[in-house]
Amino acid sequence: MSRPITLFTGQWADLPFEEVARMASEWGYDGLEIACWGDHFEVDRALTEENYIRRKREVLEKHNLGCWVLSNHLLGQATCDYPIDERHRNILPPEVWGDGDPEGVRRRAADRMRDTARAAAEFGVDKVVGFTGSPIWYTVAMFPPTPDEMVQRGYQEFADRWNPILDVFDDCGVRFALEVHPTEIAYDYWTTVRALEAVGHRRALGLNFDPSHYVWQGFDPVTFLWDFRDRILHVDCKEARVRSNDGRSGLLGSHLPWGDPRRGWDFVSTGHGHVPWEDCFRTLNAIGYDGPISVEWEDAGMDRLRGAPEALEFVRNLNFTPPSTAFDAAFGSEG
Amino acid sequence: MSRPITLFTGQWADLPFEEVARMASEWGYDGLEIACWGDHFEVDRALTEENYIRRKREVLEKHNLGCWVLSNHLLGQATCDYPIDERHRNILPPEVWGDGDPEGVRRRAADRMRDTARAAAEFGVDKVVGFTGSPIWYTVAMFPPTPDEMVQRGYQEFADRWNPILDVFDDCGVRFALEVHPTEIAYDYWTTVRALEAVGHRRALGLNFDPSHYVWQGFDPVTFLWDFRDRILHVDCKEARVRSNDGRSGLLGSHLPWGDPRRGWDFVSTGHGHVPWEDCFRTLNAIGYDGPISVEWEDAGMDRLRGAPEALEFVRNLNFTPPSTAFDAAFGSEG
Amino acid sequence: MSRPITLFTGQWADLPFEEVARMASEWGYDGLEIACWGDHFEVDRALTEENYIRRKREVLEKHNLGCWVLSNHLLGQATCDYPIDERHRNILPPEVWGDGDPEGVRRRAADRMRDTARAAAEFGVDKVVGFTGSPIWYTVAMFPPTPDEMVQRGYQEFADRWNPILDVFDDCGVRFALEVHPTEIAYDYWTTVRALEAVGHRRALGLNFDPSHYVWQGFDPVTFLWDFRDRILHVDCKEARVRSNDGRSGLLGSHLPWGDPRRGWDFVSTGHGHVPWEDCFRTLNAIGYDGPISVEWEDAGMDRLRGAPEALEFVRNLNFTPPSTAFDAAFGSEG
Amino acid sequence: MSRPITLFTGQWADLPFEEVARMASEWGYDGLEIACWGDHFEVDRALTEENYIRRKREVLEKHNLGCWVLSNHLLGQATCDYPIDERHRNILPPEVWGDGDPEGVRRRAADRMRDTARAAAEFGVDKVVGFTGSPIWYTVAMFPPTPDEMVQRGYQEFADRWNPILDVFDDCGVRFALEVHPTEIAYDYWTTVRALEAVGHRRALGLNFDPSHYVWQGFDPVTFLWDFRDRILHVDCKEARVRSNDGRSGLLGSHLPWGDPRRGWDFVSTGHGHVPWEDCFRTLNAIGYDGPISVEWEDAGMDRLRGAPEALEFVRNLNFTPPSTAFDAAFGSEG
Amino acid sequence: MSRPITLFTGQWADLPFEEVARMASEWGYDGLEIACWGDHFEVDRALTEENYIRRKREVLEKHNLGCWVLSNHLLGQATCDYPIDERHRNILPPEVWGDGDPEGVRRRAADRMRDTARAAAEFGVDKVVGFTGSPIWYTVAMFPPTPDEMVQRGYQEFADRWNPILDVFDDCGVRFALEVHPTEIAYDYWTTVRALEAVGHRRALGLNFDPSHYVWQGFDPVTFLWDFRDRILHVDCKEARVRSNDGRSGLLGSHLPWGDPRRGWDFVSTGHGHVPWEDCFRTLNAIGYDGPISVEWEDAGMDRLRGAPEALEFVRNLNFTPPSTAFDAAFGSEG
Amino acid sequence: MSRPITLFTGQWADLPFEEVARMASEWGYDGLEIACWGDHFEVDRALTEENYIRRKREVLEKHNLGCWVLSNHLLGQATCDYPIDERHRNILPPEVWGDGDPEGVRRRAADRMRDTARAAAEFGVDKVVGFTGSPIWYTVAMFPPTPDEMVQRGYQEFADRWNPILDVFDDCGVRFALEVHPTEIAYDYWTTVRALEAVGHRRALGLNFDPSHYVWQGFDPVTFLWDFRDRILHVDCKEARVRSNDGRSGLLGSHLPWGDPRRGWDFVSTGHGHVPWEDCFRTLNAIGYDGPISVEWEDAGMDRLRGAPEALEFVRNLNFTPPSTAFDAAFGSEG
Repeated sequence: MSRPITLFTGQWADLPFEEVARMASEWGYDGLEIACWGDHFEVDRALTEENYIRRKREVLEKHNLGCWVLSNHLLGQATCDYPIDERHRNILPPEVWGDGDPEGVRRRAADRMRDTARAAAEFGVDKVVGFTGSPIWYTVAMFPPTPDEMVQRGYQEFADRWNPILDVFDDCGVRFALEVHPTEIAYDYWTTVRALEAVGHRRALGLNFDPSHYVWQGFDPVTFLWDFRDRILHVDCKEARVRSNDGRSGLLGSHLPWGDPRRGWDFVSTGHGHVPWEDCFRTLNAIGYDGPISVEWEDAGMDRLRGAPEALEFVRNLNFTPPSTAFDAAFGSEG
Repeated sequence: MSRPITLFTGQWADLPFEEVARMASEWGYDGLEIACWGDHFEVDRALTEENYIRRKREVLEKHNLGCWVLSNHLLGQATCDYPIDERHRNILPPEVWGDGDPEGVRRRAADRMRDTARAAAEFGVDKVVGFTGSPIWYTVAMFPPTPDEMVQRGYQEFADRWNPILDVFDDCGVRFALEVHPTEIAYDYWTTVRALEAVGHRRALGLNFDPSHYVWQGFDPVTFLWDFRDRILHVDCKEARVRSNDGRSGLLGSHLPWGDPRRGWDFVSTGHGHVPWEDCFRTLNAIGYDGPISVEWEDAGMDRLRGAPEALEFVRNLNFTPPSTAFDAAFGSEG
Repeated sequence: MSRPITLFTGQWADLPFEEVARMASEWGYDGLEIACWGDHFEVDRALTEENYIRRKREVLEKHNLGCWVLSNHLLGQATCDYPIDERHRNILPPEVWGDGDPEGVRRRAADRMRDTARAAAEFGVDKVVGFTGSPIWYTVAMFPPTPDEMVQRGYQEFADRWNPILDVFDDCGVRFALEVHPTEIAYDYWTTVRALEAVGHRRALGLNFDPSHYVWQGFDPVTFLWDFRDRILHVDCKEARVRSNDGRSGLLGSHLPWGDPRRGWDFVSTGHGHVPWEDCFRTLNAIGYDGPISVEWEDAGMDRLRGAPEALEFVRNLNFTPPSTAFDAAFGSEG
Repeated sequence: MSRPITLFTGQWADLPFEEVARMASEWGYDGLEIACWGDHFEVDRALTEENYIRRKREVLEKHNLGCWVLSNHLLGQATCDYPIDERHRNILPPEVWGDGDPEGVRRRAADRMRDTARAAAEFGVDKVVGFTGSPIWYTVAMFPPTPDEMVQRGYQEFADRWNPILDVFDDCGVRFALEVHPTEIAYDYWTTVRALEAVGHRRALGLNFDPSHYVWQGFDPVTFLWDFRDRILHVDCKEARVRSNDGRSGLLGSHLPWGDPRRGWDFVSTGHGHVPWEDCFRTLNAIGYDGPISVEWEDAGMDRLRGAPEALEFVRNLNFTPPSTAFDAAFGSEG
Repeated sequence: MSRPITLFTGQWADLPFEEVARMASEWGYDGLEIACWGDHFEVDRALTEENYIRRKREVLEKHNLGCWVLSNHLLGQATCDYPIDERHRNILPPEVWGDGDPEGVRRRAADRMRDTARAAAEFGVDKVVGFTGSPIWYTVAMFPPTPDEMVQRGYQEFADRWNPILDVFDDCGVRFALEVHPTEIAYDYWTTVRALEAVGHRRALGLNFDPSHYVWQGFDPVTFLWDFRDRILHVDCKEARVRSNDGRSGLLGSHLPWGDPRRGWDFVSTGHGHVPWEDCFRTLNAIGYDGPISVEWEDAGMDRLRGAPEALEFVRNLNFTPPSTAFDAAFGSEG
Repeated sequence: MSRPITLFTGQWADLPFEEVARMASEWGYDGLEIACWGDHFEVDRALTEENYIRRKREVLEKHNLGCWVLSNHLLGQATCDYPIDERHRNILPPEVWGDGDPEGVRRRAADRMRDTARAAAEFGVDKVVGFTGSPIWYTVAMFPPTPDEMVQRGYQEFADRWNPILDVFDDCGVRFALEVHPTEIAYDYWTTVRALEAVGHRRALGLNFDPSHYVWQGFDPVTFLWDFRDRILHVDCKEARVRSNDGRSGLLGSHLPWGDPRRGWDFVSTGHGHVPWEDCFRTLNAIGYDGPISVEWEDAGMDRLRGAPEALEFVRNLNFTPPSTAFDAAFGSEG
């Protein structure tokens, strides 16, 4: 065989779960990375409603799909983000947003992340992909001058807020796969190093490999995979395209909406950008990653109904198996 | 659907129009960008011969092809080119060449361009693609020293010769799409700026976007599309390939014939070169271009019968539709 | 001669103004770009204290230094920044910080900027360089999804807060030179376009050209100079060095302190980085900029006492005069 | 048609010849480049065993495969290599290795190469592809200081050892196609120049074009093809992939095994690397090469059963025919 | 010492020869490359006027300057250029321009070039640097389609016009050093190959190495030096600067005047551009070039009085001597 | 002050030690990195001859030079190199070469390296820079196929031969600084990792940082410094220049002698090549390296008498001191 290829349902949560399952199955996906928003996977109902989990499994089985991971980026974002504002209100369940008091939002989101671990265990998966937000991301430009103690406090706050969450993950036998991404506590190589240090490299904290966030920042996905090879819990094939040699576009994006040709980079359909996928897949083979490969599809310039099956074909083609013997073995076949 | 994909017939004018139509249709093209040479579209006959235009339309209909534009590069070239010589004689109808006296040639060519506008209107299309030639292109190297007044005179001569032509275009409700190209009054970004200024940005003068001429000169097709977005009347998917890191080949081409591997760049089958097509198509979507996409196929190293259908498939694949809603809309589907 | 070369005193404000003046003069600087912090230029005292301005001028004259501009980055930053926190407290005068209530801070800072225009006029300069902060910078990563209306509101808030400030600038005959910089309302090419639009391109808002912020974002300083040539009020020769091909360092800097070799870019002594200074100076000549060239010196890896005179020599060498006649005029001297 | 596409059997010699022939045929290959090891082509048996050659031909015919060349890299390597050690023992027939005395090994290998020419002639092909080894390759780093006379002696030794071999090739009407490759007497452009000089440019010594060895060394395959166009006897489409911008991997490979992601370059399935194949094929057309195109498939990261048919499709697609007339002929079709 | 460094007087011909000599001497130049225009060296007077040559020599001696070469670019240009127009009139002596009839101009220019060889011999130098013009340069863009016979005729015309000129050079013991340059019969590597072929590689035709014309065309000055090493008669250190990654500027220059920042490349003061001078000088050493190094100074953005001495210092610094023994000889000094 | 700058005497060993000392002192060097060949430092005499060491110190003191390290590259090379041949004979003392039997040479060289540690201690320095040779370097091209066990055996042999040598270093309180270099057991990043592992990361084995060997192999000197920051014992400022975009030159050097322009890279005078020195020096500051900076001068294209003082000036200029406080401290000086 080789690794299963799944579709992340996060960008399809405006559609009913069953419809997404049906389409993914028809396109040939092997499974889903299910988002914990929309009606795709409702953590509260999963823990309280009889048969909720069973019915989800039935949908998957009906469409011959597997599921190896849940994803809860949106709630995770709110656990230690700063500032908390209308952007969060737009993506959170009303009961988590509540009155919008920032600290209350963060605490309710943390509770819900703990529940996500519990629900994942019930659902029979041992990984949750997601975000953490960050107390210090907004200081990224280092002006006004950001004291180093402020940075240290940020990592400490992350640890203080997430250690109790990860305790529940440990209790449930589930691991959290942090997607390294701008606005998270870890958004590049060295912040990943420091975030892992902040929680003492505890086993519960792993990584979701999504290289679309690396290429425009300029660090190497293969180096990331190799150095964090024992932390890679999941892979998202999201794609980015850089266009920055025209004299005017900038890598910070100019507050321009996705899809605007003046942006210095953009998300595009997997295979249409600058992630060195072939090197990534070869390295995934080399480090022995055998979990699912998930297509996270975002492209403001292409209809998703065209993109999703095309991305599957692209990934399928790269998801090849390494050989069992060295090729130059054939040279010594003499006797 | 999306934009129609047409085949430019200019490089096929050694074949009868009907045969080209038949092949294009069989390959799956949606229509033709018809050249005004060979028997493909004869301006004089179109204006004088009863049924000429109707018979052309019938051929198109028979093969289920549309036509949205005529192209008259060769005659346009002669309208204000300098010097006029055997190269022009080779590409002009004998009655336009006449005795070969340069000024006579230019005037007859201008008359014929006016007729082209009239014939286009009769034919039911509102755009003519073409060239202009240039009184100053031959001074491009700036040696012997070229006084700036000589350059200014060149743009003025272009305006003087073309304003009367564009008057007829205006009268006919047709616009002229200048293909920015070496040897034309506009061959790069800044000469395009200046050519538009020369005619006071009159509406009749638009642009045919053919990025094959941009990549070896080193300016960016996406920037061109964005900045001239209200002038882009037509798109030609011609392709160029640059090969200039071998120490010996030069970007000016060394007077070597097309296809010679010592050249620093060459025209190749669409998709085999260095035009950033994906960025171009995304930008065409972003600026709302909804006209035809025409394959202008030139490749001295490949049989055209192989290349034309392959280029169609390549372009068809890029000619995708943008989505109707933002992808991150799905994140806020909670309530 | 040519343009005067000044030293920006902002990074030297821990030293008494007179000492900075003495050193700058000894190194050979022609003048100072005086910071409105430390004891270098105190806006409140300048407006209220008899002789304050005269004494400043005397210091300058004593050291044979000119001054063409005041700079008030720190107060400007607070006028419409978000969030307001300890970083601002560290850089603001106590009376502006007050109780730290964000809206109060912003208003007091705006008052002080108006006073800065008045003080500049009194001091005899007609330009103030500075920052604005930004209501939307912190959303730069576009996640959680940032609605376009939120971006529009940000520019509008900038206009609403700054139009009254600029009214005072107009009254005083002083112009404000915004330094395009991350965390400001304009941090790259396209945000500059939009910030100028937001205030209706009113004359009072110009630009301080500091290309150190451009090179790691990937947009071209020469293009910026050319396109905004009628807005360039002042030039800061600050320098940046990019180091992003090592597989691990990222352009966002990883929250690492200045000078850490793991950062993807850093500020360095002018001439030690990747700003294309020669092209910048040639373009400054071409657009007719004739104001001061100011060395803004920041380098966490070099002692400033070494750097400041070296930077002066570097800039002096580039600050050459263009010729009065075309070189190829000599070819036609025959008759 | 166009040139036949063959599969080099060297990396498949652990399988019986007939099985390789069957698979190659099923995948669609036009023929085989047969390796003289394993049971694929045994030079000694070919010269001594009645019907051996006829039976090989019958296998080919049964599977509708052609053969235009034999390959004997392994024996060739031993003819003038230094040092001779266990690596050679692993790839040589026991009777050639003998007691392993280096000079004896070299002489027996030379004898066998002469026999290879004879066997090739019997088999009906007029080219043998192969290696030569090198007396001086191991000094490539130039430290300890390598006297130039030592280098000269190396080329002379090559000539002394190979002229007698090439005499037999001449006698048999067969030419030897040296694969330019590290560890051979010629491993790059300038060593090829010098190796040809060493044997006085005798006709019997030609070249096997295998650009996989060029790209990581940094010289241009197209330049190689053009300058040695009258020596190109055969083409191997082997592929290499370079990955050297991560700060740590080096082009010399760090003694790491093939397929290790820390290597600076690697062999990969044809079409997955950095050889500029399109330019190579266009140049092969331009220089009139009309022999077979052989897929030499090596990829430590991909199963060969997947790779071999994919590589064929890749090469088939590039193996296009040039046109018979110039495309701009169509512009002059007027009269 | 090493090679003398001279100043080319062509761009200073608006000044009297003696003044240029005085300034060059004061700046420290070792000699002059004297232009045959202005009053610098008048070929007709040199051949007819008693003492003209002696007086020139006296000026040189007075200022302690050598001279090893005359330059006659302007007249050379007219010998086989096409078209001949006002640009030529501006740079030719009135008696050569005459009535401006093109063929008459070409013939008179050819006569004057023959005289230049004679005058050079009289003056005691054995090389003349210059241009040739070209009958086919203006067809460089290959549109309208340029038949290959037209190109061939162009080279033939060059040979027909220049062989008689070179006969006189031979008679006088003088060689002509063609400066490879756009608008000349040879403007890049491959046109140089063909121009040399056109005159049968006769010894009288050599080359003036001026790499400023190579860098924006994209071919390698070191390769040029190596391959034409037996033809390099003289060296001009002219400099070019390329700026083509801003999305809008193009390598053909947009008819914009020198010094305009929108141009894709420009001439600049030696050392301020992209010629790989260090590699060039090392290669000049390697090929044993021992003639003068001449600074040809052109920079539309810098005052020449600043540039000329700075360029001398730059070149002086590169004009270093190679060692007499190998550095690793020191490793073997043991016994 | 800052770190002392020394001259490595290895390339000057054809001259008497005292003469080198005199010249280095006159040029302004602070000290010498003394080579253990020529008469510069003779290990055997140092250990046996009374006053030898004292007299060396006197020479240094007379010329006001310091010495912090001895270098014994040549003997180190022989300790575990393979093959041993005339190249070694040329660089070894006769008594070490002896009868040239390889194993005997290796053992005598090992003895002499132990003595070098003893002599260094006597001489009062605690570091010896040098080479090790390698049992497996010659297999670097991996053809004939190199079994991984052969590679493992190579590292083991290095450990077996060097552990006893390093024991003596430990006894003497001296550390060995291996120069990572082709033909050594460690020649790039990953081989350095493995060599350190092979000896169990024992403290006695450190590194000599010489980035000239890194740039043409393509790995990053700054990454090397950072990751091995606790092993950097010494710094050699040797320089390399890469020239590999001409289509023909290759990175392996084509067996061409140093200084030949056809080579793909070469050693050049420090500051004339592609080592990113500024980044290196900044990183040396960042990791707290406070030992000597040694100019190892090799340039086959420049006279060393010119190069050595120029290199000193170049290095002196980069050897700047970092500041004691953060630059943005000045922003908070308000209260």
